[in-house]
Amino acid sequence: MSTQTKLRPSASYRITVRLEIKQEVGMFGHVSQAIGDAGGDIGAVDLVKTGQDSVTRDFTINCTSVHHAQEVIDSISKVKGVKVISASDDTFLMHLGGKIEVTNKVPVKTRADMSMAYTPGVGRVCMAIHDDPKKVYQLTVKKNMVAVVTDGTAVLGLGDIGPEAALPVMEGKAMLFKEFGGVDAFPICLATKDPDMIVETVKLIAPVFGGINLEDISAPRCFYVEDRLKKELDIPVFHDDQHGTAVVVLAGLTNALKIVKKKVEDIKVVILGVGAAGVAVTKMLMSAGVKDFIGCDRQGIIYKGRDVGGNSAKEWYAENTNQGIIKGNVKEALEGADLFIGLSGPGLVQASDLKKMNRDPIVFAMSNPVPEIMPEEAGPFVKVMATGRSDYPNQINNVLCFPGIFRGALDARATDINEPMKLAAARAIAATISDNELSPEYVIPGVFNRAVFKKVAEDVAEAAVKSGVARKTGRETTAYTAQLSWNSNQFGE
Amino acid sequence: MSTQTKLRPSASYRITVRLEIKQEVGMFGHVSQAIGDAGGDIGAVDLVKTGQDSVTRDFTINCTSVHHAQEVIDSISKVKGVKVISASDDTFLMHLGGKIEVTNKVPVKTRADMSMAYTPGVGRVCMAIHDDPKKVYQLTVKKNMVAVVTDGTAVLGLGDIGPEAALPVMEGKAMLFKEFGGVDAFPICLATKDPDMIVETVKLIAPVFGGINLEDISAPRCFYVEDRLKKELDIPVFHDDQHGTAVVVLAGLTNALKIVKKKVEDIKVVILGVGAAGVAVTKMLMSAGVKDFIGCDRQGIIYKGRDVGGNSAKEWYAENTNQGIIKGNVKEALEGADLFIGLSGPGLVQASDLKKMNRDPIVFAMSNPVPEIMPEEAGPFVKVMATGRSDYPNQINNVLCFPGIFRGALDARATDINEPMKLAAARAIAATISDNELSPEYVIPGVFNRAVFKKVAEDVAEAAVKSGVARKTGRETTAYTAQLSWNSNQFGE
Repeated sequence: MSTQTKLRPSASYRITVRLEIKQEVGMFGHVSQAIGDAGGDIGAVDLVKTGQDSVTRDFTINCTSVHHAQEVIDSISKVKGVKVISASDDTFLMHLGGKIEVTNKVPVKTRADMSMAYTPGVGRVCMAIHDDPKKVYQLTVKKNMVAVVTDGTAVLGLGDIGPEAALPVMEGKAMLFKEFGGVDAFPICLATKDPDMIVETVKLIAPVFGGINLEDISAPRCFYVEDRLKKELDIPVFHDDQHGTAVVVLAGLTNALKIVKKKVEDIKVVILGVGAAGVAVTKMLMSAGVKDFIGCDRQGIIYKGRDVGGNSAKEWYAENTNQGIIKGNVKEALEGADLFIGLSGPGLVQASDLKKMNRDPIVFAMSNPVPEIMPEEAGPFVKVMATGRSDYPNQINNVLCFPGIFRGALDARATDINEPMKLAAARAIAATISDNELSPEYVIPGVFNRAVFKKVAEDVAEAAVKSGVARKTGRETTAYTAQLSWNSNQFGE
Repeated sequence: MSTQTKLRPSASYRITVRLEIKQEVGMFGHVSQAIGDAGGDIGAVDLVKTGQDSVTRDFTINCTSVHHAQEVIDSISKVKGVKVISASDDTFLMHLGGKIEVTNKVPVKTRADMSMAYTPGVGRVCMAIHDDPKKVYQLTVKKNMVAVVTDGTAVLGLGDIGPEAALPVMEGKAMLFKEFGGVDAFPICLATKDPDMIVETVKLIAPVFGGINLEDISAPRCFYVEDRLKKELDIPVFHDDQHGTAVVVLAGLTNALKIVKKKVEDIKVVILGVGAAGVAVTKMLMSAGVKDFIGCDRQGIIYKGRDVGGNSAKEWYAENTNQGIIKGNVKEALEGADLFIGLSGPGLVQASDLKKMNRDPIVFAMSNPVPEIMPEEAGPFVKVMATGRSDYPNQINNVLCFPGIFRGALDARATDINEPMKLAAARAIAATISDNELSPEYVIPGVFNRAVFKKVAEDVAEAAVKSGVARKTGRETTAYTAQLSWNSNQFGE
């Protein structure tokens, strides 16, 4: 695919190559040249040791693919006086033994520590929870712990790879929860694809968790699992692939509409890709005010009466969108559209299709890593462009949403993550860009803008309180102090 | 109960009392006196602030119970010129928000970090596991992660307090796994008491875990759960309440027999308390060579033909022990016995009972916190005495076993923790005390003797290899280095 050649060398294909290089003037240059000729991007060079006739160095090199990395190594091997001692894949090195661990927040270094953290002291803490079940939120990890639950059926773009192979993604998700939201998250990879068994298992392990983040479960099973868990559990349940994406899309749209000076009620939206994320994006945009919506799959526009093969998501589109019952392909759908949302595959939209859109078109082409249309191609025909990629402006990245939305839900001890909370999250993300800063290249904040998470968490907690799903409204610390007062006699034997 | 008064002030009933004390000569002495008069044990005194007429100090005081703590506070309140500002329970303070957390082993501070730990880089790691499932042990947390699984039905001595109230104990257990074994452990508290549902749930969440530690599940369900999981999972399953106790008892007995110069084959053993731990101890000691065994419950000796109310554990005793079909109570059972093992309740054995034992009796009175007989009472009549308490010599504490046994099992990537591995653990614990060091007061090493865990882990891993349940025999690091060689081409796209 021609778009593939546009991939830039990146850390996700970073290798470290150890070279024994002959002690001769110009050798370093020869090696660098060989790496550059092969398209490798040198990140760092470390000296390992200096010998009599040779010097050993580690070259860290960004490549574009595994195949490309091999080409870079081959190119180095051809330099006279250079011996490749070893080459390692930095991504794999980083994963050795997993990326997260369970650590102790308080020491158990002495008998006194043990007698409080474990027997016999812990017994009183257990009985305090037994006597007043809501204390589990004060005295255990439940206060801050989210399960990242998958069955491994729809992992990234890789499909149904199973629970074990899905684990590195769930660990990565847990890392982002911690880094950006201060949320403890633990991966639960289930050895079943049966939606009822997924629901039952999550319910049975729920006592330890303050929230459930569903992840990479294929449609339509994910809808059923989410619906049941939301009804049957008293802790928030959130399917990030659906709602995280929807929240960030709405945030981006909110800001993009300011730029093009259009109202959400007036725009026509076309979405290509009506899987789990597509449905959630559509519902969220409609609840934010969008009226004219057209959904497309690879066969074309979905309309009332079209055969959708019993797919419940597509049935929903046929029923609830495309009121004009327009037929045709995505190209035809785009005529007069204000916003195109792509959640499908690489290269499925052409520049010529975009020409038919309304003035100042907005394009969110989120297929990853290769969008429905590359920004370079779309550029001349659109006003605001966003993708899922980090190397172009306006990255639509769920990490802007899920750490903050769970932080807010946990802080409010919410029983749910409901529509008002999701809308609050979208507004909070949008609001971190001031009107002065706003530009077509900056409608969505960067993922390392820490202000985003704080604002999302605060606004989501507030929305939880206002919408009546919060079980706690005050400041945690105040509550603690009062509860710990000995004289209040709450910890009786 | 009179034995209760023997409890010493301990950290598990430690309070911190903030006092505003009038600036007057001798006031500190008056406060200390009041605390001492009430039986409190001052641990530390910190200055909070000094005012015009008063000084504010935090007194940290060990007490014997919650009631006693209140007495200490009352005693302080009566001192003229002293005002109690606040009092807090240090054990509860320590538990706020839980005792463990999930932390990141590698940074996600930059885009490069994220592109390796998460998308897109992580996709290759997923596919490597998908293509070669055993790589899940190298590239994820499964390598080092144990689930601490309970249903909350037999928590410490507290009984069936439910999964939420059990969580502080499971967190404590996870802390000990980490501190003493370097094992990551995560609490799984199940909202079901149905043994089949426990089994099914554990099987479904097993992909993330390298081992399962069952904890505080009541008998006889614990036997069924353990049996099924051992058969149906390919990772080690260990019920610590049973086997951890059994391993440490055998370790203590091994050393005690050296002191009394008796052979395991020749001794007569009486056990009082035939729950989950009792059965496991009995089986382990019999597999170590004990032939003459008598089990007692509170009604007395269990013998073939006695009514045991359909209790399967007691039926096992009736069938497999007490070959002489002796009847009577525990006192009668003890006649001529060499070893008494108590796993029952406080004060259930009298000094006069011990007089009837064989020469140089060994007594392991493990009821906690108050033993079947206190060491002071038993002292004159026994040669070697052990309890479950940390404030007497020879503490029989499972923490000597479970961190090391799982460390060894994980290091060997064992499919099971079998009899040879448990026997190796017991021998390893015993062997950490050299013949020179051995004495009646030192047959069991202290829990803070770090040499224990290392030796247990090494010997258990070796036993796993010898008994054919290890899936890995070499050094991890060597394996890694080889696998990471780029040229081995194991990480193909």
